[in-house]
Amino acid sequence: MTRSALAVLLAIVLVVAPSGPSAQVARSWDATFRAIPDAGNIGDYMRRMSARPHHLGSAYDKDNAEWILAKFKEWGWDARIETYQVLFPTPKERLVEMVEPSLFRAALREPPVAVDPTSGQESEQLPTYNAYSIDGDVTAPLVYVNYGRPVDYEELERRGVSVKGAIVIARYGASWRGIKPKVAAEHGAVGCLIYSDPADDGYAVDEVFPNGPMRNKDGVQRGSVMDMPSYPGDPLTPGVGATPEAKRLDIRNAPTLTAIPVLPISYGDAQPLMAAIGGRAAPAAWRGGLPITYRIGPGPARVHLKVAFNWNMTPVYNVVARLQGSTYPDEWVVRGNHHDAWVNGAQDPVSGMSAELEEARAMGELVKQGWRPRRTIVYIAWDGEEQGLLGSTEWVEHHDEELRYKAGVYINTDGNGRGFLNAGGSHSLEHFINGVARDIEDPDTKMSVWKRKQARAIANGTAEQRSEARTRADLRIDALGSGSDYSPFLQHNGVPTLNLSFGGMDDDGIYHSIYDDFYHFSKFADSDFRYGRALAQTVGTAVIRLADADLWPFEFTNVADTVQTYVKEVQALLKQRQDEVRERNRQIEDGVLAAIADPRRPVQAPKAEAPVPALNFAPLENAANTLTRAAERYKKAADAARPRLGANAGIVATVNARLIQSERQFVEPAGLPKRPWYRHLLYAPGYYTGYSVKTLPGVREAIEQKSYAEAETEIVRAARALDREASLLDQVSAELERVR
Amino acid sequence: MTRSALAVLLAIVLVVAPSGPSAQVARSWDATFRAIPDAGNIGDYMRRMSARPHHLGSAYDKDNAEWILAKFKEWGWDARIETYQVLFPTPKERLVEMVEPSLFRAALREPPVAVDPTSGQESEQLPTYNAYSIDGDVTAPLVYVNYGRPVDYEELERRGVSVKGAIVIARYGASWRGIKPKVAAEHGAVGCLIYSDPADDGYAVDEVFPNGPMRNKDGVQRGSVMDMPSYPGDPLTPGVGATPEAKRLDIRNAPTLTAIPVLPISYGDAQPLMAAIGGRAAPAAWRGGLPITYRIGPGPARVHLKVAFNWNMTPVYNVVARLQGSTYPDEWVVRGNHHDAWVNGAQDPVSGMSAELEEARAMGELVKQGWRPRRTIVYIAWDGEEQGLLGSTEWVEHHDEELRYKAGVYINTDGNGRGFLNAGGSHSLEHFINGVARDIEDPDTKMSVWKRKQARAIANGTAEQRSEARTRADLRIDALGSGSDYSPFLQHNGVPTLNLSFGGMDDDGIYHSIYDDFYHFSKFADSDFRYGRALAQTVGTAVIRLADADLWPFEFTNVADTVQTYVKEVQALLKQRQDEVRERNRQIEDGVLAAIADPRRPVQAPKAEAPVPALNFAPLENAANTLTRAAERYKKAADAARPRLGANAGIVATVNARLIQSERQFVEPAGLPKRPWYRHLLYAPGYYTGYSVKTLPGVREAIEQKSYAEAETEIVRAARALDREASLLDQVSAELERVR
Repeated sequence: MTRSALAVLLAIVLVVAPSGPSAQVARSWDATFRAIPDAGNIGDYMRRMSARPHHLGSAYDKDNAEWILAKFKEWGWDARIETYQVLFPTPKERLVEMVEPSLFRAALREPPVAVDPTSGQESEQLPTYNAYSIDGDVTAPLVYVNYGRPVDYEELERRGVSVKGAIVIARYGASWRGIKPKVAAEHGAVGCLIYSDPADDGYAVDEVFPNGPMRNKDGVQRGSVMDMPSYPGDPLTPGVGATPEAKRLDIRNAPTLTAIPVLPISYGDAQPLMAAIGGRAAPAAWRGGLPITYRIGPGPARVHLKVAFNWNMTPVYNVVARLQGSTYPDEWVVRGNHHDAWVNGAQDPVSGMSAELEEARAMGELVKQGWRPRRTIVYIAWDGEEQGLLGSTEWVEHHDEELRYKAGVYINTDGNGRGFLNAGGSHSLEHFINGVARDIEDPDTKMSVWKRKQARAIANGTAEQRSEARTRADLRIDALGSGSDYSPFLQHNGVPTLNLSFGGMDDDGIYHSIYDDFYHFSKFADSDFRYGRALAQTVGTAVIRLADADLWPFEFTNVADTVQTYVKEVQALLKQRQDEVRERNRQIEDGVLAAIADPRRPVQAPKAEAPVPALNFAPLENAANTLTRAAERYKKAADAARPRLGANAGIVATVNARLIQSERQFVEPAGLPKRPWYRHLLYAPGYYTGYSVKTLPGVREAIEQKSYAEAETEIVRAARALDREASLLDQVSAELERVR
Repeated sequence: MTRSALAVLLAIVLVVAPSGPSAQVARSWDATFRAIPDAGNIGDYMRRMSARPHHLGSAYDKDNAEWILAKFKEWGWDARIETYQVLFPTPKERLVEMVEPSLFRAALREPPVAVDPTSGQESEQLPTYNAYSIDGDVTAPLVYVNYGRPVDYEELERRGVSVKGAIVIARYGASWRGIKPKVAAEHGAVGCLIYSDPADDGYAVDEVFPNGPMRNKDGVQRGSVMDMPSYPGDPLTPGVGATPEAKRLDIRNAPTLTAIPVLPISYGDAQPLMAAIGGRAAPAAWRGGLPITYRIGPGPARVHLKVAFNWNMTPVYNVVARLQGSTYPDEWVVRGNHHDAWVNGAQDPVSGMSAELEEARAMGELVKQGWRPRRTIVYIAWDGEEQGLLGSTEWVEHHDEELRYKAGVYINTDGNGRGFLNAGGSHSLEHFINGVARDIEDPDTKMSVWKRKQARAIANGTAEQRSEARTRADLRIDALGSGSDYSPFLQHNGVPTLNLSFGGMDDDGIYHSIYDDFYHFSKFADSDFRYGRALAQTVGTAVIRLADADLWPFEFTNVADTVQTYVKEVQALLKQRQDEVRERNRQIEDGVLAAIADPRRPVQAPKAEAPVPALNFAPLENAANTLTRAAERYKKAADAARPRLGANAGIVATVNARLIQSERQFVEPAGLPKRPWYRHLLYAPGYYTGYSVKTLPGVREAIEQKSYAEAETEIVRAARALDREASLLDQVSAELERVR
């Protein structure tokens, strides 16, 4: 090499440092990408996909799948539809009538609204119901159970009210809807009504539809009530893809169907029932927005609830599209949003699905301009999400083995609105998505969406949170529970996952009703689709950077930092339980509760509980510290190696293949206690919350459920997972330390 | 003295120690007393006094005064009626009509209820109105201002909503009603409606009257809206008794009348007005229980409000009864409850007045049995309390000089219910009233009312409060703000004061309505009057012990301990204000609030504020410590002297005369800034809260109102008051240390 050749080479290296040649290339392609998405297109896609009801099994659901397929193909993607056969009950009979103290029959119907053109498509609309309720015909006194969480039943018990043999009426909110019949049945109820209280998403919040965005008196929230916290997907094929040849459970043995019949109702239908409940006035926190005294019951209102379903098998149409990777074709970046809705679903899911399509179109443009992603990009439009993540779960279960060594990252969206970037997911991607957010312009303020998110954290935070938002390099992302198609990827297969959306500005009350449609969205939500464009820019930028990065851009110091907070949390939880039980026992012993009781309103004295034992958290603390050290070593090694990766392709390939396994170190084949399908030991939906995450779920839920021996076991299992991760990082670091 | 005589003397001393001979006697008289009060009598008094409307100036108000006078006389008291002439406006014209966007005329009327015999006495009922509203006739757009506190106007300002030229509609609650028109006028409103929201005391809480205890759609809260935090009593004679010859202000110059017309309305009348308000949806915390979207306005609802009053002078009939003291006739124990009501007033005030009468009867019995109180007991039934503590204020102002050296303690009640003993007052009486409470049996639980109060403090407290409730010798009593007849005694004259009641079990919504009557009370409140009996036992025991004690039973270590907490609180308040302003200025500078704003719902950016300066709290800290030492010295001296007081009558007389001045050391003739009538530097009603107390009010309110120079002055004034008290205690201790 001549002196001048060396000078030229050095100049090139200097220009591209510190990111390395390919990162530099990627940076420029993602910038090119961001100029392409168009808000008008997103509106057009929404208008098309939400033009008719398109629930699983409907004609327009299939039509949409085929249209999406055609679009992907038009934009140069290698696309096809993958089909599964799933159990999907639809209503044959629905009846709610009050038989005492007066007669009243619930309408169970959302009427069309004149100004809203799609609200009148009645022949194609699914009736209002909860999917995977069992058939049933019960008549029983009514008990109001607030949100129907375990904590609400504790309140009932204190007041000496049992739901045994009763039909409960719970309000929507505060927990995933499927929790409500599950907990009701555990307490002996024979039926369950769920209604939308006006305090939660009706007139109390703002004007109702069509004059405003909120739920009107007839609006009903449809939705699945399968026991998703046990496992999502087709109830008949847990753990395996619902292919034609799959072995299926008998419906009678399917564990995720409800134990009692369930039906959702509007507050128009609920008001006469609620007003007819007697007994003691409900606690202040149980009061909703109806102009009545909320009472607990039981009775005198007696209700006849009858539901019967067609228990049909239905095809699921997932649209799966690929752009083949040039360098690492077997390393995949997967991105999905579901295309099925409960009815027209402009907000849920079409506002997210439209952004996904616009990303796909823009990437097609990049390919035309010469871009070849280094990794394979897989874009998916899921079907059957609303019933219980059917399309995504069956696909992940079906491709479980392949995904285990190919799927590097999964990015999910599921609807969109105006406002702030919401980001949840694996903390190995926390640093990465913060970097993306810094490069996306907020449509309203023209500052970066990162800056705006930081501003909210500062404006709404405690002193401690404000200080962290100002000084920590990355804004924290949320851990993921469940409620959308990321669950099978993250919690079953162990794929590092992100779930993204914008929101926080507009309230609405049309969730899972016929009024979630183009008319509502374009009037009350992201009406000019500018946040749809911002979502496409955010996700597309993330996908392109992931596809083109030299090394998978995982940052494990964020994981270690987050795990340290979880370890502190579960210790604090135990301490709190210890203090609570000690204090309650002392109050029982001292007669404090008897002393403050009102003889006119008797309460049950709680029973003394065994003291909460101390637990050995040392394995978890040691493992968290080991992980912290390993993560720091990896960061140092990766930072040092990055400028010279181009010359070390072999090492890079090895490291990338191992990094794909990094999130999977947190996954254990045996899964969580009582629910082996959930295999991630850091994140799971709460067994009794449904949507909300439980972090370190084995440990946390064992403490919450007073299974202290199990908690000890779970501490050790969680510690082993952290140790595995640390060990993988040490191996990878050793590899990277060889880069010269 | 022979040996045997000495032995006899010692034996006597040993028998009576540690209380001393006369305390021993007192103990036995108060035990005798407690067996006398009878629940049936209390019910009978209530039935009599609440049989007809008996507001100030009414025929039955005078009739009740004369009946009470006769009763006192019958029971052996030296009783008379003392009369003042006060300004008392009653309605001539009341009109609330919505003129846009639709027509609606408010009923402004509480209809009789068939099952409730006194609710139909319409010819004698005062109409629904707010006393001391000025006359007015205004038509203006409506603005909803939540509870109408200063903090609510800050919310409005953030949303860019002004009440200038508007009529505000505020809901009752969270502040004294007179604050609402005062703050509204300060912000430029031209009229004020106040309504009872069903979330606060209507159907949201429990069933409405007559089916339940809560306010029905027609129920209206009458009440005074004079600027009582400036001074209570007759608006025309501030600071002097409203005797015929008193110099009176011209009505046009009376500073405690409102600046704008005010009228209270029911939620039946409020609902059409509230529903017609447009503009932005109100903040979540502003939502009440009406089945509408709460909006702020201004308009489009326009309201015509017209009120005109008869500005008459009215006689006030205070009934004043005495039992002459045998040893210290010029040391008085004063006890009062008002007899006037807004309408029938079974709860307010008759439930308390009936207990007072039963105490008087029982003391009459004791006198028959040979009891002679050592100090003079003065029992008073006040008139004109509802209008603004008229009877008590004029009496205290009239007798100001005499009371200053005679009034040793004032005990107030004002209504009663079932449940827990509520005790507020001077902290020099904290230890004393704890002692009384230990000797009163709770009617429901048969434990002492002290024990039950402790149980509640434990059950509802934070960990710190629980620990204190379990270990501190005395349960803390509340500091007093205003809202009943104790204010002139405590805050103007400096008499150590207690305000006592039972309550906490039953909700109700009949306050100041025609439905506060015997039917309601006997159905939904202390229906068998057993807590009325407990109140009579509590107050009577306290009065007898105070009247017969050797030394006034003041305990100053409780005062010092309490003052130390106040000093810490005002320091914490300043720190919090400093932090808030610093943080808000930083957020303004960093553009945080602009960043999180929703362009569809614009908010006003707050202006940067000058940093909050540090203040010199050293004088207050030093004085509090001096007081602590002096209080400990007094306790030691008094404990040591107590067994030998009988032989030191001269010292005892001197000490008692000085102790009567002890609370008055906290009083300063110049009074508080902006309101010289309030002269106590430890306790005052909040200038912008009305009922709620502000402790160390000069210091605290100066900080709250950003008058930091004034705060420095007030710190010094408060410190001087503490020093004066310490100095008095040191003198008294020196006297007692002479006891041998």
